[in-house]
Amino acid sequence: MAEPLKPGPTSRVLHCDRSGCRWMGIEPEPYKTEAGGWADITRWSLVGTRGESTRFHLRYFEIAPGGCSSLERHQHEHVVIAVRGHGEILLEDRWEPLHPGDVAYTAPGCVHQVRPVGDEPFGFFCIVDAERDRPVVLDDGASCELR
Amino acid sequence: MAEPLKPGPTSRVLHCDRSGCRWMGIEPEPYKTEAGGWADITRWSLVGTRGESTRFHLRYFEIAPGGCSSLERHQHEHVVIAVRGHGEILLEDRWEPLHPGDVAYTAPGCVHQVRPVGDEPFGFFCIVDAERDRPVVLDDGASCELR
Repeated sequence: MAEPLKPGPTSRVLHCDRSGCRWMGIEPEPYKTEAGGWADITRWSLVGTRGESTRFHLRYFEIAPGGCSSLERHQHEHVVIAVRGHGEILLEDRWEPLHPGDVAYTAPGCVHQVRPVGDEPFGFFCIVDAERDRPVVLDDGASCELR
Repeated sequence: MAEPLKPGPTSRVLHCDRSGCRWMGIEPEPYKTEAGGWADITRWSLVGTRGESTRFHLRYFEIAPGGCSSLERHQHEHVVIAVRGHGEILLEDRWEPLHPGDVAYTAPGCVHQVRPVGDEPFGFFCIVDAERDRPVVLDDGASCELR
C-alpha cells in the first residue's frame, strides 16, 4: 500500500522518561559553545540533526533555577512550547510568564531571553528553521537574576 | 539596542487555558475539509498561518475517545509531541504508544495514523514544513477502533 521509504531515517518514537523530559538515546548537549551571559541551561537535539530533511529543528532546553538563556536577537523566528515547571520570556522590554502549554513566538530581530521562575527547572521545546542566522548575543554583564 | 522589527507579526505568548490545551484568541478548526476515515479530531493552528515567516507550521490536534486521524501518507515529515492524555501512532505496520512528552517522527512516505487510548481525549502538537505535499488518504473503510 505504501511506497518504499526514501533513504534516510526511519519513523520512530522518542519515548520520554516519565520522571521528566529525557529521551532514550538522546544525550544532553552544551547550550552553546561560547560564553555570554547564560547559565545552567542544557540542550537536547530531538529532530533535524540526525538525517531528517525537515526544514525545522526541534530541540528541548531545560534551565535550572538561577540560570537563564542568553540575551540575544536574530532574524530567524523562535517558537517555544513550555512543558515543565514555570518560566518567563523577555520579549524586547517585557517579561511574559510561561506555564506548561503556553506557546511563545519570537519575531525577527526581537531581543529575548528565557529563565525559570520558582525553584524547579523550567523545560521547553524550541522550534527553529533548519537554515537560520547566528544569534547576536547581547551580554550586558548582568547575572541571570538581575536582568 | 535592538534593530527595528521587520513588518510582520510581533512577538507574543499564546497563553494556554490551564484546564486544557486551549489558547486565548485561537479558534478550533475542522481537521480536514474532506471526509476519509477520520473522526472526532479538531485542529488549532498556532504558528505559521498568521503572517509568520517560519519554514514550519505548528498545530495542535485533539482526538476524542473513539476518534482517529486519517490513515495517510505523504512525502513531508511529521513531528508529533504528545502532551495530553494517552494515544498511539501507527507507523507503517506497528502501533507505538504515545504518552505526554513522547516525540514521534514520521519519515517520508510512511503510512501513519493517530488515535487515543483510554477514555480521555488525546492531544498533541504536530510540526510540519510550511511547504509540503498533500496527504494521500488511504481510507480502507474501517472505523477508528477496528483498524
